[in-house]
Amino acid sequence: MSLLTVGSVAFDAIETPFGKTDKIIGGAGTYIALASAFYNIDQKIVSVVGDDFPKEMLDLLASKNVDLEGLQIKQGEKTFFWSGKYHNDMNSRDTLITELNVLENFDPIIPESYQGVEYLMLGNLSPQVQSTVIERLTKRPKLVAMDTMNFWMDIAMDDLKKTISMVDLLIINDEEARQLSGEYSLVKASKVIRAMGPKYLIIKKGEHGALLFHNDNLFYAPALPLEEVFDPTGAGDTFAGGFMGYLASTDDISFDNMKRAIINGSALASFCCEKFGTERLTTITEQDLVNRIDKFVSLANFDIVQTVG
Amino acid sequence: MSLLTVGSVAFDAIETPFGKTDKIIGGAGTYIALASAFYNIDQKIVSVVGDDFPKEMLDLLASKNVDLEGLQIKQGEKTFFWSGKYHNDMNSRDTLITELNVLENFDPIIPESYQGVEYLMLGNLSPQVQSTVIERLTKRPKLVAMDTMNFWMDIAMDDLKKTISMVDLLIINDEEARQLSGEYSLVKASKVIRAMGPKYLIIKKGEHGALLFHNDNLFYAPALPLEEVFDPTGAGDTFAGGFMGYLASTDDISFDNMKRAIINGSALASFCCEKFGTERLTTITEQDLVNRIDKFVSLANFDIVQTVG
Repeated sequence: MSLLTVGSVAFDAIETPFGKTDKIIGGAGTYIALASAFYNIDQKIVSVVGDDFPKEMLDLLASKNVDLEGLQIKQGEKTFFWSGKYHNDMNSRDTLITELNVLENFDPIIPESYQGVEYLMLGNLSPQVQSTVIERLTKRPKLVAMDTMNFWMDIAMDDLKKTISMVDLLIINDEEARQLSGEYSLVKASKVIRAMGPKYLIIKKGEHGALLFHNDNLFYAPALPLEEVFDPTGAGDTFAGGFMGYLASTDDISFDNMKRAIINGSALASFCCEKFGTERLTTITEQDLVNRIDKFVSLANFDIVQTVG
Repeated sequence: MSLLTVGSVAFDAIETPFGKTDKIIGGAGTYIALASAFYNIDQKIVSVVGDDFPKEMLDLLASKNVDLEGLQIKQGEKTFFWSGKYHNDMNSRDTLITELNVLENFDPIIPESYQGVEYLMLGNLSPQVQSTVIERLTKRPKLVAMDTMNFWMDIAMDDLKKTISMVDLLIINDEEARQLSGEYSLVKASKVIRAMGPKYLIIKKGEHGALLFHNDNLFYAPALPLEEVFDPTGAGDTFAGGFMGYLASTDDISFDNMKRAIINGSALASFCCEKFGTERLTTITEQDLVNRIDKFVSLANFDIVQTVG
C-alpha cells in the first residue's frame, strides 16, 4: 500500500535540561516519514525546503524508499526553522524562534504519480494547506488522518474546523483536544470533536499514553515509562508515522488493527525521546522495534480471572 | 484468607465543582473496607471513632462481614473530620479543615483474635501508628502494604522512611513518589523508593492509571476515562481496598495476580468517583463490578501481529 505524508521538512534548534543543539534536522514530515519507513509501504512526501537543506538527509529519506518527487526545493530560499526550549518537567516548552521561510507561501503540489495514494497523513501545517491537499487528490484515500496544533486554533479556527470536517482521523494531544472542544473531560471532548467530522480520534497524552475513540469503542494505550525523556521533539509525529505506516502496510483499518498501529506508533515514539531530534530514529534496527513492542505487550497485558463474590 | 485494614473512619465535608456536602462518612479505613468487602475474605479493621459516629455505618460494615472488634469507640470524644475543596480540574485540592480529634492519641490496639492475619493494609495514618501495628502482629503477614501522604513527608520523613522500610508494598501517587524520592522520572523514583525497602511499588496516577513495579517487571494499568469525575475523594483508598481484597481472596501474590488485583482496584475506584463520598460504593452490585472489569479488558487489551520490515 502507499502512504502520502504532507508535513514540514525543517531545521530545529532544541534546548532541554540535558543540553542544547545547533540547527538539526526536524519537521513533522521528516519524523513521520522516518517512522513509517519501518513498514513495507510505498511512501510519498509532499513538502518544501530551501536550498540550504542538506542533500544527505534527502538521500537518507530516498534510501528508505521515500519518493521525493513531491518535495519542492526552492532555490534562493531558506528552509523552515523552529527553535524551542523545554521546561524542567519536559511536558511544556516555549517557542523561541519561528522562521516560516519557504512555508510562508507553500503550495502543496501533488505530482501526477501520487494520485491514487491509499493512505494520507497530513502533518501539522496550516489547515488551508491541509484541505488543499485533500481537494487535489482525485481519488479519496482509504484513510485521511491529520495532526494540528493549538497555534491554528488560536489564529485560524474556522479554517481548521473546515479541514477537520474533511478527515477520517484526527490525532491531537490532550491540551489541544480540550482547547478545540471547550471540554475538560476527554470523554466529553471526544464527542464534541467527533461531531465535527472525524469518525476516529486519537488523543495523545505524552508520558500517559494515548486514547483511541471510534463509535462506542475506546482503547487506552500505555506509554512506556522512561528513565529519562531526553528530547520529546518529534515524538508525536513519530507516533503518527508509526501508526500510519503500520496501518498502510497491513491495509486494515479495523479498530483492533488500529490498536496494534497505536502500539507500533508508541514504540517508535519511545525511541524518539532517547536522543536529540531524529538521531535515535535513524539508528533503530528492526529487532530493536520488535523488542520494544514486546515490552509494550508485557507492560499492558493482563488476564482476568473472575473471583468477585 | 483474612485482611486487616488499619485506617481512619471519619467524617468528610467535600466541595467540588459539582456541589458540596455536609459532614458525610469518609476515612481511608472506611473506603478500603467497603472496597475489599466485594471479595470473599475475612475482614478485620483497627481504627477509632468518637461517640458521634453513626451506628448505621458501623452496622453496614458489620453486614459486609467486617469484624469491628478492633474499632475503638471513644466516649465523649469526636470523630476525625476533614474538609476539602477540589479545584476545577479535579486533580488538586485544598484542605480547608483538619480536626484530628480521636486520631490525635490513637493507639492501634490489636485484638487477640486478629493475630495471624494473612494480609495487612495500612491506610494513610501517622507512620508511627503504622509501624506500631506491624510490630504488634506476632506473625508477619504474607503481604504488608501501606499508603501514605506528602503531609507525612513534610513533617515526619524519618519516621516515614523507617515505616516504609518495614513493608512489602508501598502504594502512593505520582506526586508523592516524586517528593519521597527526589526524582521527577517515575522510573528513577521507583528505584530510589524500592531501595528504601518495599519490594513492590504501586504509583497511582489518577486519571492516567497506575504503575506496578517489582524487580524488572513493570505493569501499566489504565484508568477508565470518565465523562465526569464527580468526586475523587476516597478513590485511592478504594483502589487499595479492591487491590488487597482481590489479593487476599485469591491468596496469590505473583506479579500476574497483582496485575489482576490492580484492575479490580481500578474498576472499584472508577465507581467511587461517580458520586460524593462512599455513596456509589454502597450501591454497586457484583454484576456492576463484573461489567466494569470487562470494560477494562476491552479498554486495555490488544494483540500484536508482527509486520515490521
